[in-house]
Amino acid sequence: MFSKNIGKWLEPTGPEADVVLSSRVRLARNIRGLLFPGHASPAELESIVQHCETALHRFSIYEPDLFVRNQELTPLRAGYLTERHLISPDFLRLNQHKAAFILGDETLSVMINEEDHLRLQVLASGLDLGPVLKELQTFDDALGGELGYAFSEQLGFLTACPTNVGTGLRASVLIHLPGLVLSREIDKILRGALQVGLAVRGLFGEGTETKGNLFQISNQVTLGKSEEEIVEGVAKTTQDIIGYERKMRDYLLEKLKPEVEDKVFRADAVLRSARLLSSAEATNLLGVLRLGVTTGLLPKPDLRTLNELLILCRPSNLQVYFDQEMPSQERDARRAELVRARLLSV
Amino acid sequence: MFSKNIGKWLEPTGPEADVVLSSRVRLARNIRGLLFPGHASPAELESIVQHCETALHRFSIYEPDLFVRNQELTPLRAGYLTERHLISPDFLRLNQHKAAFILGDETLSVMINEEDHLRLQVLASGLDLGPVLKELQTFDDALGGELGYAFSEQLGFLTACPTNVGTGLRASVLIHLPGLVLSREIDKILRGALQVGLAVRGLFGEGTETKGNLFQISNQVTLGKSEEEIVEGVAKTTQDIIGYERKMRDYLLEKLKPEVEDKVFRADAVLRSARLLSSAEATNLLGVLRLGVTTGLLPKPDLRTLNELLILCRPSNLQVYFDQEMPSQERDARRAELVRARLLSV
Repeated sequence: MFSKNIGKWLEPTGPEADVVLSSRVRLARNIRGLLFPGHASPAELESIVQHCETALHRFSIYEPDLFVRNQELTPLRAGYLTERHLISPDFLRLNQHKAAFILGDETLSVMINEEDHLRLQVLASGLDLGPVLKELQTFDDALGGELGYAFSEQLGFLTACPTNVGTGLRASVLIHLPGLVLSREIDKILRGALQVGLAVRGLFGEGTETKGNLFQISNQVTLGKSEEEIVEGVAKTTQDIIGYERKMRDYLLEKLKPEVEDKVFRADAVLRSARLLSSAEATNLLGVLRLGVTTGLLPKPDLRTLNELLILCRPSNLQVYFDQEMPSQERDARRAELVRARLLSV
Repeated sequence: MFSKNIGKWLEPTGPEADVVLSSRVRLARNIRGLLFPGHASPAELESIVQHCETALHRFSIYEPDLFVRNQELTPLRAGYLTERHLISPDFLRLNQHKAAFILGDETLSVMINEEDHLRLQVLASGLDLGPVLKELQTFDDALGGELGYAFSEQLGFLTACPTNVGTGLRASVLIHLPGLVLSREIDKILRGALQVGLAVRGLFGEGTETKGNLFQISNQVTLGKSEEEIVEGVAKTTQDIIGYERKMRDYLLEKLKPEVEDKVFRADAVLRSARLLSSAEATNLLGVLRLGVTTGLLPKPDLRTLNELLILCRPSNLQVYFDQEMPSQERDARRAELVRARLLSV
């Protein structure tokens, strides 16, 4: 953890990895008979952390690379984990008795005492929600057996926020949709996703603008369907969107080739030449480069390098990479340096 | 004329050619006893054209490459001459009995029946207003001897518009001021120029925005001073501005080197990679490249190539270069092609 490596979920080895970067399923769980974190006293919160820690350590197959209390995390390291989608932005806020449990390859992670007692997550490369759910269910069943979850026959799993009650499941994919954005079909597609109960957001969660044409598609409803049905619904709609995206890429290359080439070759040139690169600009240009590589307009870099740069260019990951806290201006210079070096080396 | 060559005034051979692209002096003259063009009948206008043509042909030392009536000019060719500052944008408008007389190297030109009967102009490379004025005066004296100018002992040369009366002289320089723009000192400098009676405008005349950090400095007052005094005034202020500009370039390279490098290397990369380039963007990026070359941040291209591209990237010159009328989108593609080829060949 806190290394220059990227998580296994960012290796472009999964299905449809040219369009879908990653699949994620998380479950919200709470321990029977205990107050939700927002209502528990500090002493109760501390006892929940210890209780969970003990239970987690009983699974030797899930050897964590990191088991960390939020008080032990520097803001930089918390940022690093947030940027890698391993903890939430709220992890350092509110009550002080939280902990995170993360496997070294970043495929499985647990947050304790965030909004719920437990948030369990499995992350994988490409569009691979079915296997992700299976792995998560195995883990969830074992952990639930140890801890005893709060469960109602009528409602399902009980959660702090009613939007999670039932399965407590959120399935999401991180998807690259430059074809739909450039052809201006994206709004239609997003409205369609909304109509089948899915939410579509920019890469870095709610309220942030869409950068690099990267979107996150996830289910909004957690109640009234089985875990498998929810995951299948997200997977099916994602598969449809991938189909539209590929069609639009073909259309763009046929009808607007000079415009697409112009965009792609400029992005490549700027990334190889800039001396200062903000995080937002890097994300945007790397998104354009990804379009160039996946459509064959650019012979390189490979998808792995693109995924790697996408994470390493985020502010906290960049500083961990260079093992140094830096003001914004210096980060921009080092980011440009890193991108240039990587693109020249492949 | 109408060739791929650039005028002699765009060769970077004149004094201070790294900062000042060109010097120009023009004289407004009218023939004694004839109505100004705005008031003359078509028959009178036609007789003025013929009268001037005859007089001009008497000077075999000024062998024109082009003597053309406005009716004979296509809009494309008129655009070409306008972009090269050899005729005014108004040349094709209003009355139909105009003509232009232009030497092949573009150093000397005459417009007949624009606002005044005669507009005489000499253009040269760099900051070279003194010699330019001398050459123009020699030509003006000879032509005035042939035609007989309208002149008042009290007012000087009479002109259609009172802003030109007196000497009828407008001296101007085309100057590149990226140092003053980037350091945000430009407004102070422009206010100072205004206070000593000079006007400062963007490259392509009044009312157009400043592109590529190229400015035109010229006198506003034509009355109450001798031709030599006016020209010396413009030259002196220009010399002062060059001094500030060089100081600001040194300052920027010392204090903001990463920002300047970033700007310069990006501009170079984009010009070498873009597949579509608008005229405005090309002008802007070539301006940044010029800063890079003159400060030593970039080893190439040479100033001649930069000056050449600056003219060839203008819409009409581009079409004459490719010997083909083209819609805007196609021009952008051919412009990018031309720029790429030129920058790769030097």
